[in-house]
Amino acid sequence: MSDNEYRVAVVGATGAVGEQMIKYLEQRNFPVKELRPLASKRSTGKTVMFQGREVKVQETTPDAFEGIDIALFSAGGSVSKAIAKEAVARGALVIDNSNAFRMDPEVPLVVPEVNPEAIAQNKGIIANPNCSTIQMVVALKPLYDQFGIERIIVSTYQAVSGAGMNASKELDAQTQAFISGDQVPTQILPVGSLDNHYQLAFNVIPQVDVGQENGFTLEEMKMVRETKKIFNDDQIGVTATCVRVPVQRGHSESVYVELKQDYQLEEVKDLLAKQPGVIVQDDIEQQIYPMPLETADRPEVFIGRIRRDLTHDRGLNLWVVSDNLLKGAATNAIQIAEAYIASKR
Amino acid sequence: MSDNEYRVAVVGATGAVGEQMIKYLEQRNFPVKELRPLASKRSTGKTVMFQGREVKVQETTPDAFEGIDIALFSAGGSVSKAIAKEAVARGALVIDNSNAFRMDPEVPLVVPEVNPEAIAQNKGIIANPNCSTIQMVVALKPLYDQFGIERIIVSTYQAVSGAGMNASKELDAQTQAFISGDQVPTQILPVGSLDNHYQLAFNVIPQVDVGQENGFTLEEMKMVRETKKIFNDDQIGVTATCVRVPVQRGHSESVYVELKQDYQLEEVKDLLAKQPGVIVQDDIEQQIYPMPLETADRPEVFIGRIRRDLTHDRGLNLWVVSDNLLKGAATNAIQIAEAYIASKR
Repeated sequence: MSDNEYRVAVVGATGAVGEQMIKYLEQRNFPVKELRPLASKRSTGKTVMFQGREVKVQETTPDAFEGIDIALFSAGGSVSKAIAKEAVARGALVIDNSNAFRMDPEVPLVVPEVNPEAIAQNKGIIANPNCSTIQMVVALKPLYDQFGIERIIVSTYQAVSGAGMNASKELDAQTQAFISGDQVPTQILPVGSLDNHYQLAFNVIPQVDVGQENGFTLEEMKMVRETKKIFNDDQIGVTATCVRVPVQRGHSESVYVELKQDYQLEEVKDLLAKQPGVIVQDDIEQQIYPMPLETADRPEVFIGRIRRDLTHDRGLNLWVVSDNLLKGAATNAIQIAEAYIASKR
Repeated sequence: MSDNEYRVAVVGATGAVGEQMIKYLEQRNFPVKELRPLASKRSTGKTVMFQGREVKVQETTPDAFEGIDIALFSAGGSVSKAIAKEAVARGALVIDNSNAFRMDPEVPLVVPEVNPEAIAQNKGIIANPNCSTIQMVVALKPLYDQFGIERIIVSTYQAVSGAGMNASKELDAQTQAFISGDQVPTQILPVGSLDNHYQLAFNVIPQVDVGQENGFTLEEMKMVRETKKIFNDDQIGVTATCVRVPVQRGHSESVYVELKQDYQLEEVKDLLAKQPGVIVQDDIEQQIYPMPLETADRPEVFIGRIRRDLTHDRGLNLWVVSDNLLKGAATNAIQIAEAYIASKR
């Protein structure tokens, strides 16, 4: 990476997040010398549009990373585990959107607004946190700095696109079939790899990712562990209930946070409004609050319903919404790349 | 009410809850001598089916309550305020499903599984609690008795039928229009009487009922105040975030409860499983948990995702689902009537 333009590979280029990564690289005017879209063998031959040109999708093989400076991975944990280190061995910086390396002590887990300093510790791989974690820690960062955080209790309202493009299509197909009175297809949701599949259309499913022995789901435990790692603070208490709702794009979160110090509500609102990457939409009497339909396709984290908790003096309630494919995935990954480049200058 | 059969009026007989009340009176074999369906002038001339016969809907006037023993009101707060006392004056027991009298110190607020003893204090009116409150207190009752409750933090996932039949129809129309690429109708949701209306299809709206000066919505404050009144305990802390989701029937709730004493998880599960009116569906590894689509049209409260909180020793997380039109409204009202009758024998 000696000059100011970069050869960028996107692994999982035809997936829900990969698509957004390519779109976002273009929108942000990321200094791309060459875009190399990679995917499974099945997708080779397809093309993606980038800067007005069609670019052919290639198969994700070790050699496909020859000459690559930055490899953005978003093809699931098993692909990342199998091949990310091959990319690193060929000189690429890997920014990985899967769960493969997030809790690896050798791998920094980065949200640029929260812990950009962790980027410097990378040994070739930087992990992008889980979508539901990213938007929450962006919202909580200024409160953490100002007051300290004792604990967090979060309930999520997660969009189906977090489960991938086929899950998105299944919600559409379910909705159409349900309205028409046809047999509702249930082959993917809530978790493709598990045995039982349920209708999400006109329903909510209190399961995101696989269940664990402790009664929580993997998604819930990601929020717990990743939040501690990103804030570099094992003392933060986090408990989560993760729920899939029939929304295509945009995760919403009902967040209860117990601060370490007393606070004034106006100070909290000011801090949130000043936080880079955050937009406050908060006036219930005027019916102003964020909703996933309005925040889709926007890169910021939106916060509303900011109010003093009724059960604890240092408790605070927030409603946090963000596009899970953008700040929750593609945007954050590319912001990591930008912060990395800036740190090398 | 001298014999064992009763003349029953249903006010709001053509509404979402009124319809369920009539259906449920029939299903439960409630001892109905005469069913008198009442509604606004606009609905007179319509008929409802009861025990295989068509019964004409009459206008809700004071004189319509002549001879009535039990009047089930579910036509909104303004109708209840205007006319419930006329029914009482004519000798009827009023069971009111609106918000009109719930916090009136003269009016008991009753969930038969929780505080049946309050029925005896009535002076002609018994209030049925808000749908989101009912299912939560049924779930928490055995825990309250066994351990005491310090505080509750609840986030809801509420079905559109809670906003009435026209709101239900609007969600269907929105969904159909959105899928077809047509203009999405937004005239009712989230709150018909307010200025701003939003799409709920493929969205979530963090507003149920009108906003208040303290930043909470009326729905949220109902959960706070009613829970304290039903448990007859002003010391219980309650904070709520109430959210409308694109579901037709069945409210879901992510409930964090902080008990007053240490607990064993198995004991909690046993207590919940033994509680009348509760069905436990709890095994995340087997993908067993309640969902609104599966619990619609069933009168019980369903509980799953039962797990020890990760941030507090006495904290517990529950996922509580129930049909908002049944246990959340019609079923509870008729159970109050049954308990009242039993208490008079």
